[in-house]
Amino acid sequence: MRIHIQNPQGETLFPVTPAQVAAALARHPEIGSPEFSYAEDDAGFAAAMAEAEVLLTWTRVVKARFPVGALPGIAPRLKVIACTSAGLDGLSPFTWLPPEIVLLNNRGAHAAKAGEFALMSLLMLANHIPFFGTQQRGESWTKRFGSTLAGRTVCILGLGSIGGTAAKHAKAFGMKVIGVRNSATPHEHCDEVVTTAGLDSALARAEFLLLACPLTPETRGLIDRRRIGLLPAGAKLVNMARGAVWDQDAVCDALEAGALAGVVTDVAVPEPLPAGHRLWRTPGMLVVPHVSSDDPATYNDDTLDILFRNLLAMRAGQPAPNRVEPERGY
Amino acid sequence: MRIHIQNPQGETLFPVTPAQVAAALARHPEIGSPEFSYAEDDAGFAAAMAEAEVLLTWTRVVKARFPVGALPGIAPRLKVIACTSAGLDGLSPFTWLPPEIVLLNNRGAHAAKAGEFALMSLLMLANHIPFFGTQQRGESWTKRFGSTLAGRTVCILGLGSIGGTAAKHAKAFGMKVIGVRNSATPHEHCDEVVTTAGLDSALARAEFLLLACPLTPETRGLIDRRRIGLLPAGAKLVNMARGAVWDQDAVCDALEAGALAGVVTDVAVPEPLPAGHRLWRTPGMLVVPHVSSDDPATYNDDTLDILFRNLLAMRAGQPAPNRVEPERGY
Repeated sequence: MRIHIQNPQGETLFPVTPAQVAAALARHPEIGSPEFSYAEDDAGFAAAMAEAEVLLTWTRVVKARFPVGALPGIAPRLKVIACTSAGLDGLSPFTWLPPEIVLLNNRGAHAAKAGEFALMSLLMLANHIPFFGTQQRGESWTKRFGSTLAGRTVCILGLGSIGGTAAKHAKAFGMKVIGVRNSATPHEHCDEVVTTAGLDSALARAEFLLLACPLTPETRGLIDRRRIGLLPAGAKLVNMARGAVWDQDAVCDALEAGALAGVVTDVAVPEPLPAGHRLWRTPGMLVVPHVSSDDPATYNDDTLDILFRNLLAMRAGQPAPNRVEPERGY
Repeated sequence: MRIHIQNPQGETLFPVTPAQVAAALARHPEIGSPEFSYAEDDAGFAAAMAEAEVLLTWTRVVKARFPVGALPGIAPRLKVIACTSAGLDGLSPFTWLPPEIVLLNNRGAHAAKAGEFALMSLLMLANHIPFFGTQQRGESWTKRFGSTLAGRTVCILGLGSIGGTAAKHAKAFGMKVIGVRNSATPHEHCDEVVTTAGLDSALARAEFLLLACPLTPETRGLIDRRRIGLLPAGAKLVNMARGAVWDQDAVCDALEAGALAGVVTDVAVPEPLPAGHRLWRTPGMLVVPHVSSDDPATYNDDTLDILFRNLLAMRAGQPAPNRVEPERGY
């Protein structure tokens, strides 16, 4: 098996290295001895694609190098494309992907880090930290007392590995957790699970709302101005999904009107957010530059473990756990 | 038994009410039926002091109404003064307190709330939130990736109910916890406990340093410029104690020099911190206006429970668990 790793040009923080691959192979001896190639540039990519059966790379590399119609021609032996991101909305629509090629996301590499970010965000909102950030900009010492999380209700939109870990932490701190996902199947860390058909009534009870869903045609704009208006007075929001899941201006308007008490967002429209954008200045809005979920200390090790687990499953004739279904978008 | 409750004039958020007292009496039927009086003003205080055996009030009320020499004269039957604060450094030196009067602090009323604040602060520092607060002031989208808490070392100065609860949370997230207190007795949530004699070597290992000690003559200025210099490069600090425990200017200098990576402080010198003070503007410094530990939803209930437990202990001839020892200052 030939596996090609295409790191983005100039990537310094998260390039997958031969040493990380060697360590991952030692953790998974059952994978055997695949051949690996590495490149950052065009020539290395072109040379590798002639032979590669598996490509591990970044979403933006896939988008740039595989326009509609390029596959399978430029990579005749390619069977698997594994992306280092959990959300592959940047590759949608998937008309560029021939059905015989398996597309894998990186769901699971973010659980520990993103779970802690989610808990931190809930605690920050319970303690009015976004408000104090605004106060600090105005150099104003204005007390506002917060409460513990116990007994408060959080609605978590999306119960993948990020939302599921968030639910686990919220539960451990005594919160009542309402999960929202495609099916109403119970979840071990939720008191209640509803589908989007039950979203409106869940929002009406959501003292905290945490967005952790993939961006798909169904979730784009899901938290619109009307739904933001359904939240209880003084509700608090966290967005760890994508900026396009909510109506960003409606959120800013609700903060300015005092209808929402605070927001922590790890995502924005657009990214990078330019200076002068209202998001930076909206009172009670804390902006984090899309770093909630990637831990440099563990990310590539987790990525390679996930890739190997998927390759082993496919070799055994089982479904690849991280396979993206183009028709649902994740 | 006559118990007088003197609420501060104009207190709207935390006044102790007859309804809260009735609920506390119902939780502690063994306390019997003490007589209660309530006042906010001078006349009410003067009238109550003639008969009161127990006074429950605020530190600032005690300071204002009991100058040196006033007791026991103005309150001849007073046996117990219970303060609603955990740290009674504002009442030091204790030359105003006759030895026959028991002074109680409110240690324990803050554990749940302050413990969550401590965990939040550690997570915020691991996720570079104070840095992003500074970036938001400059409207700059600059990524900096953080890591999970697991495996990182935190040094907690003070293992009272706040520091002890912080240690419990830190341990639950996989941190290595070094506690610092007056005796090196082991603590259930610490990997290691040292006295201040071991402080310097603990600081050299402290990726995170959390201050949660009382302000006493021994801890005033304890984290001085020299000791801040002992911390590892990129160390992160939380101050939930008092501003006078650290050298505030040295902390700001270390942040500006990049020696420290971030600071969360709930305390400041002076409080309230005036506009224009350098603390507001130091990069990587997040200022919270002394609200880490008081939860309006539970504070007075916890306060009354603590008072009643102490009165019951004293009635049984046992030491009052919250008795302040003037010679050690807490």
